Amino acid sequence: MTAPPSALLALKTRFARLTHLEDATGMLHWDLSTVMPEGGAEARAAQLATLKAVTHELLTAPEVGDLLAAAEAAPPADPWEAANLRAMRRRWRHATAVPADLVEAHARACAACEMTWRRARADDDFAAVRDPLARVLDLTRAIGQARAGVLGCDPYDALLDAFEPDARAAAIAPLFDHLAEALPGILDDALAAQGPAPVPPPGPFPAARQEALARRLMETLGFDFRHGRLDRSLHPFCGGVPDDVRLTTRYDETDATGAVMGVLHETGHAMYERGLPAAWRDQPVGRALGMSLHESQSLLVEMQACRTRAFLTWAAPLMAEMLGDGRGEAAGWDADTLFRLYTRVEPGLIRVDADEVTYPLHVILRFRLERALIADDLTVDDLPGAWRAGMRDLLGLAVPTDRDGCLQDIHWYDGAFGYFPTYTLGAMTAAQLFQAAVAARPSIPDDLARGDFAPLMGWLRANVHEKGSLLTGPELLTAATGRPLEPAVFLAHLRTRYGTRTG
Amino acid sequence: MTAPPSALLALKTRFARLTHLEDATGMLHWDLSTVMPEGGAEARAAQLATLKAVTHELLTAPEVGDLLAAAEAAPPADPWEAANLRAMRRRWRHATAVPADLVEAHARACAACEMTWRRARADDDFAAVRDPLARVLDLTRAIGQARAGVLGCDPYDALLDAFEPDARAAAIAPLFDHLAEALPGILDDALAAQGPAPVPPPGPFPAARQEALARRLMETLGFDFRHGRLDRSLHPFCGGVPDDVRLTTRYDETDATGAVMGVLHETGHAMYERGLPAAWRDQPVGRALGMSLHESQSLLVEMQACRTRAFLTWAAPLMAEMLGDGRGEAAGWDADTLFRLYTRVEPGLIRVDADEVTYPLHVILRFRLERALIADDLTVDDLPGAWRAGMRDLLGLAVPTDRDGCLQDIHWYDGAFGYFPTYTLGAMTAAQLFQAAVAARPSIPDDLARGDFAPLMGWLRANVHEKGSLLTGPELLTAATGRPLEPAVFLAHLRTRYGTRTG
Repeated sequence: MTAPPSALLALKTRFARLTHLEDATGMLHWDLSTVMPEGGAEARAAQLATLKAVTHELLTAPEVGDLLAAAEAAPPADPWEAANLRAMRRRWRHATAVPADLVEAHARACAACEMTWRRARADDDFAAVRDPLARVLDLTRAIGQARAGVLGCDPYDALLDAFEPDARAAAIAPLFDHLAEALPGILDDALAAQGPAPVPPPGPFPAARQEALARRLMETLGFDFRHGRLDRSLHPFCGGVPDDVRLTTRYDETDATGAVMGVLHETGHAMYERGLPAAWRDQPVGRALGMSLHESQSLLVEMQACRTRAFLTWAAPLMAEMLGDGRGEAAGWDADTLFRLYTRVEPGLIRVDADEVTYPLHVILRFRLERALIADDLTVDDLPGAWRAGMRDLLGLAVPTDRDGCLQDIHWYDGAFGYFPTYTLGAMTAAQLFQAAVAARPSIPDDLARGDFAPLMGWLRANVHEKGSLLTGPELLTAATGRPLEPAVFLAHLRTRYGTRTG
Repeated sequence: MTAPPSALLALKTRFARLTHLEDATGMLHWDLSTVMPEGGAEARAAQLATLKAVTHELLTAPEVGDLLAAAEAAPPADPWEAANLRAMRRRWRHATAVPADLVEAHARACAACEMTWRRARADDDFAAVRDPLARVLDLTRAIGQARAGVLGCDPYDALLDAFEPDARAAAIAPLFDHLAEALPGILDDALAAQGPAPVPPPGPFPAARQEALARRLMETLGFDFRHGRLDRSLHPFCGGVPDDVRLTTRYDETDATGAVMGVLHETGHAMYERGLPAAWRDQPVGRALGMSLHESQSLLVEMQACRTRAFLTWAAPLMAEMLGDGRGEAAGWDADTLFRLYTRVEPGLIRVDADEVTYPLHVILRFRLERALIADDLTVDDLPGAWRAGMRDLLGLAVPTDRDGCLQDIHWYDGAFGYFPTYTLGAMTAAQLFQAAVAARPSIPDDLARGDFAPLMGWLRANVHEKGSLLTGPELLTAATGRPLEPAVFLAHLRTRYGTRTG
């Protein structure tokens, strides 16, 4: 059987449409989170549900399977075309693996569970959400099983795969075990080395000033406001589309340090989106590779490049000028204070407040528990207890309430199992990529100390952003750094920064 | 043949999806006009084109014709269901009447012509846009002919029908002839009666103050900011969806009077959208009836309710307080000055700058010319001369340049033939509805003089907004005012306001 040349063309036309509909969906989500009045919620939900249904039908129409088979029968020689075809097959496989009624039942169960969870968390009442969570878990497991049959992997891997293509828990577990073993020692050293808590610069910091500084920093990183915006939302995110990237942040007028790092983090995401290969904008191969690589780009900017003495030496006078009301160093706007503030370590119960050293321990706890939940090795009833035991083992902390324990994150209650690992895979990837970038361009630390991000961003663009989804994650990392993902670089980074208080 | 009950249900499900996709499209247009960075234009165009294509396919899929026939075979007894089915048929007829390649050729020709027109207008060079306009005209005529065959009317009527359901040029022409005969006398009287030009309040007026006033006025009219927004755009419009109405305006810091009336005008559109029947939100019968009724709602608020001594007596102190920097009447913020400013009459070349008396003459010129163009009674080459002759006849003005003549409006160059009449049909409808509202609720003028719009809006909601597309335009107007559209009320309104300088 030979593939008619039109099969690939027909697929590309269809997937371009899919991209446009997903881009439209992304813009409507941005609107919902930033500017939509509350009374628009119901109409917006209807718009989004219909877009989702239409997109799904376009992807799963009977002819798509035939077109894929025809195109694969004579695979294109061009590596981008070939990778694009693989990415199409991957998307089709995920979309067709799960029966529509199961997808719908899962969506309904998640919506109901999430609503109950909001009250349950506020009331510290795990029992209230026990049944809805059990229902979400059952349906998520069923989805994992349906996908697993098609992908040839475990159900948990099949869930993970939706966020991180080709990732497998059996490969992640030893990396995480290694981290779990090494981090407590690093944490002890960090606590011993960091000295007394610095006094943060005194506020208040009007939101308009923080926003002006945020824009200045975004431009410093290379963000082009002709191709994007900065707005405000309750939960900061990077949305929109590659040619119109929509960042958001929030401003605390009593503490400006959070928004600064928040914006730098989101700008890392944004630069990845902006740098994706323009020639493949509306095809699957032109899109971001996976969540861990995406997170690596935000963490590389935030953790590797910006929470450094080098960058903060450049940034401190700017922050003093734009936020400090001319009070300068006298009021704490000096590089040393900022570095101590931005690298302060303190074990705590809440993941989103965690520092760079303890964050992976929060993730490892969740990875282990969700893997056990999906494998039916842990019941929902046993979850609060398992959480307490895990926090004691990993961080040495007692968990007084479920609100600050297994009720703290929305993910599971919204059906997102398999997402958590990408945070720490991203942190490790960031460290490894940054080390490679500096090895290739040794001036980078000095450049950052002058507020010059062009050499770093140039390396990232060539080695990460412009690759789109041409390579698998491990292939991309090996091509860029010479080896697959390993914990050593990340751990060495933590030892240097927190043990010796340098970097 | 009996209709399976599922035919109507299947149609309603499909048309709900269509509505959601059109609503999503509307929100993306709002974004494009208000917040989108310039670099997002190409990606947005792709999103909109795909949404348009998907919407069109959903509407014209082969099974829709069968479902319509099945549902019509046993038409629903409920008048809303029956009107909804008629509205579906109408939309389907319009969408299927024109071959897809003609629609696409027309869209391409319009895009090319509009681009050329922007330069041609700037250069005052009609010859530059002559060929592109001739191409647009040919294709528009072909579309009119294709639709005319299905609708059983003339090609021009078939174009008009897309903006104003069931309107026919043969019925509009005598109304417009009547206006064209009466207006010059009213204009002469107005010019004689209005006295010297008032001195407008001195600026500058910071945009933020104007915006605060605009919001206050919108709330006074009953606009609910939980269901909508006010933003800025180059060209003011009312967009969004009924439960999330997005108004825009622009601010001239040297003259605040324009933005005030602009916002009141758009709020009239917005109140119509908000008042559409909630139970039919996502069905054709729940949507606005046509462009002239929509324009009547904005003109009723602006021209009938707000450019009155009554309303301005209430508004003047508010404007003085919010814009006038406490200078009050001394600086021109008194009701008499405002009334004279807002009812100033002056014949001019430009439609969008025209006053209430001369505006219809601009529309009548365009209606006559575009009708002749579509009927092939006027060639593109003869258009500039015909424009000059018409302006001389109707307004007694010489047209020195095509830039201020037949190049001034975008409509034809973008393929919109049949739209212009709706402006003046709207003005006549507004006068007739307002008269009926006051007859039904005689307190309305006094209410407006107290800034109380509730009685007026309550009448409009019950007699216009909540009707959606249940009735035809003539049926709605007859039910609300006791008779079909006639020029008498509008002309009487103009004679009173501009001849006697009252009202």
